[in-house]
Amino acid sequence: MPRIGVGTDVHRLVDGAPMHVAGLAWPDEPQGLAGHSDADVVAHAACDALFSAAGIGDLGSNFGTSAPEWAGASGCALLEETARRVRAAGYEIGNVAVQLVGNRPRLGPRRAEAEAVLGAACGAPVTVSATTTDGLGLTGRGEGVAAIATALLLPTPR
Amino acid sequence: MPRIGVGTDVHRLVDGAPMHVAGLAWPDEPQGLAGHSDADVVAHAACDALFSAAGIGDLGSNFGTSAPEWAGASGCALLEETARRVRAAGYEIGNVAVQLVGNRPRLGPRRAEAEAVLGAACGAPVTVSATTTDGLGLTGRGEGVAAIATALLLPTPR
Amino acid sequence: MPRIGVGTDVHRLVDGAPMHVAGLAWPDEPQGLAGHSDADVVAHAACDALFSAAGIGDLGSNFGTSAPEWAGASGCALLEETARRVRAAGYEIGNVAVQLVGNRPRLGPRRAEAEAVLGAACGAPVTVSATTTDGLGLTGRGEGVAAIATALLLPTPR
Ligand SMILES: [Zn+2]
Ligand SMILES: [Zn+2]
Ligand SMILES: [Zn+2]
Repeated sequence: MPRIGVGTDVHRLVDGAPMHVAGLAWPDEPQGLAGHSDADVVAHAACDALFSAAGIGDLGSNFGTSAPEWAGASGCALLEETARRVRAAGYEIGNVAVQLVGNRPRLGPRRAEAEAVLGAACGAPVTVSATTTDGLGLTGRGEGVAAIATALLLPTPR
Repeated sequence: MPRIGVGTDVHRLVDGAPMHVAGLAWPDEPQGLAGHSDADVVAHAACDALFSAAGIGDLGSNFGTSAPEWAGASGCALLEETARRVRAAGYEIGNVAVQLVGNRPRLGPRRAEAEAVLGAACGAPVTVSATTTDGLGLTGRGEGVAAIATALLLPTPR
Repeated sequence: MPRIGVGTDVHRLVDGAPMHVAGLAWPDEPQGLAGHSDADVVAHAACDALFSAAGIGDLGSNFGTSAPEWAGASGCALLEETARRVRAAGYEIGNVAVQLVGNRPRLGPRRAEAEAVLGAACGAPVTVSATTTDGLGLTGRGEGVAAIATALLLPTPR
């Protein structure tokens, strides 16, 4: 029986921080995301969707204050470790799909690059898409960037 | 062929109401959620994901004003009846995954308890995770609590 | 191995625009949705979930400014073409589930009609549900309407 999971994440846009989103650095962005580690909303949503599908907690319980060795780890490093824990729990990863919701960065020109980096971290297909919210809400007003992810797992054959 | 569904829910945080979330009472919370029945956003999102996957309407059409016998029913009671209707429509429930989005309550210490209660109501694995929105949006400002769920069904073998 | 995807969309409610949502016209609505094409948030979210699952980009990369022949196309026309591209990429469509999030229109009385129209465009089951956000956030304040979708694909048998 396959299993599915869901995860969302939001981080605040701030001046003077580097932008790391979808496993990539975006050095030309005027603002970056604030938050624990590199605040990569896309990678974090992907991790939470995987944890959710496997039923082994979430980002906070796996990499939060009780796990200081992961403080400051990049989104890609967290995704790689998440995939390892999901496999250790007895699942193969079918695919992960993430949608970036926000005005910036413009994912389109670098979609293939993002999917390659995240897919390598995950060891399974990761697709990345993007949308905006028509100027409305926290993402439309440019206060932050959000991401939503879903993941599909299959039990590891014995 | 398996089927998937999605459901979200939002309820307002108010003073003087008890907090019921993820099938549990949270008597130490300073605020509770307002809304129809016990306003359990996690259980409601799970119900809507199940209805959505089975294609048999939603919370409103199943338990709304046209079904006064369900007015005031707990989230767990609604989830149990939802699972019954989904099975009656010809599906087995593979799993349900729900993410609580908000500042309160802190799910982590009671995750296993929540998953046990909701899983018993549903008769299938229900995983519960949690995240915040970095102080942004309706959940970040503490105006309300949201939940997002996905569900996977399989046709009942004949 | 099946594949899943996720998509969300938001459009602004404005005076003096027709309302097209879930593949249907809603001539009695006092406001409509603004945006590219007919701003059908439900159809757009469904398209993005399908693209996301197949890993072939998103609405913007498929039907955006680089594809002026699709400017102004209806949500149903986009969904039909999306389904065609997903099949051309090697997948069968299992099902698509979409939840409308907002105060208007009231989907319930026309759910079956919406599901029939979108299902015909997609060539696969499309379920449509609806919820509100308890007066909170961009949808609760009536600034706009949102939709969230998930899609399940199976590789086409050879
Ligand atoms: Zn994060
Ligand atoms: Zn509710
Ligand atoms: Zn749109």
